[in-house]
Amino acid sequence: MQLLEERIRKDGVVKEGNVLKVDNFLNHQIDIALFDEMGKEFRRLFPEEKINKILTIEASGIGIACSAARYFGNIPVVFAKKSQSINLDGSQYQTKIESFTHKKTYDVIVAKKYLSPDDHVLIIDDFLANGCAVSGLIDIIESSGATIEGVGIAIEKGFQEGGKLLRNRGIHVESLAIIEAMNHVTGEVIFRNRSN
Amino acid sequence: MQLLEERIRKDGVVKEGNVLKVDNFLNHQIDIALFDEMGKEFRRLFPEEKINKILTIEASGIGIACSAARYFGNIPVVFAKKSQSINLDGSQYQTKIESFTHKKTYDVIVAKKYLSPDDHVLIIDDFLANGCAVSGLIDIIESSGATIEGVGIAIEKGFQEGGKLLRNRGIHVESLAIIEAMNHVTGEVIFRNRSN
Repeated sequence: MQLLEERIRKDGVVKEGNVLKVDNFLNHQIDIALFDEMGKEFRRLFPEEKINKILTIEASGIGIACSAARYFGNIPVVFAKKSQSINLDGSQYQTKIESFTHKKTYDVIVAKKYLSPDDHVLIIDDFLANGCAVSGLIDIIESSGATIEGVGIAIEKGFQEGGKLLRNRGIHVESLAIIEAMNHVTGEVIFRNRSN
Repeated sequence: MQLLEERIRKDGVVKEGNVLKVDNFLNHQIDIALFDEMGKEFRRLFPEEKINKILTIEASGIGIACSAARYFGNIPVVFAKKSQSINLDGSQYQTKIESFTHKKTYDVIVAKKYLSPDDHVLIIDDFLANGCAVSGLIDIIESSGATIEGVGIAIEKGFQEGGKLLRNRGIHVESLAIIEAMNHVTGEVIFRNRSN
């Protein structure tokens, strides 16, 4: 998505250790007009009429998911919660996710009543790197018996393995910007060329 | 706001200890059409043209803030982050907030570059109870030299002191639903009558 790639080039900051800071417009300060265009693009990439729910994870995924949901006919957004206090009453799906950025493992939960075998779910998140967060959300959806219709990502780090692993599992993954390489000395960001 | 009050009556669950669960439509699963109407109502209640930024706090405030921002001319949303690892390089405003729900204190941060003395800020959050979260956001805005134009809340617990304390400080607070009393045995929720 050209608009997002241009914005990353303009306002993204490449840091040592393959870190891309996009807090100017994506995950601390939010550019609402950009999110709206991203939501529209997700609808174009996932035209399936049966998608009836969006699943994301707090906190940075929420704004993107809400913007996208408007283009999917105002379908509900469910956001998985990062929790340190797991409720053991059996009313929640839970999984463990290892964070690339924070180098720690945390529990993620979704109340069982918000995912059912009738649901056709689109996962949306801000970043895809090693794929741990998305894999955790997939675990939760599979536990519920719902169908995974696809995974929509704002920024994929194409040089990490998450996207490849998911696509090899046959999951329909669409990333609005895929970074092929980046350089924290020059600040350069190289995007993967795509045809669609 | 009648639509929100009706939804709380229909889907809210009153629990012991003055807890109102609204995870069906507000803070776990999100009703996008409802959020859109809430955003429109916040614009009506805060018509000031000079409002140029919305400040909220992760995670539940983000969706509401993003929906509202569209009615304020797509102004940026900044969400304060709850952090356990404070960056001490001086690039962030920080404050401590005590959570009513989780009975613990956490650090909240906003990068300095996203609030400046030129900003006219509307605070938006999902709940107002004892007012700790909003007071923390006010501290941060005051540290930045920006102007606080008002505080927009989805659900205020009118029987707790937060709203009163803020209004007594001269802050323009608007809550879309104010709960006067609730009963976890009968499940009854009584709203404050308002004229606007």
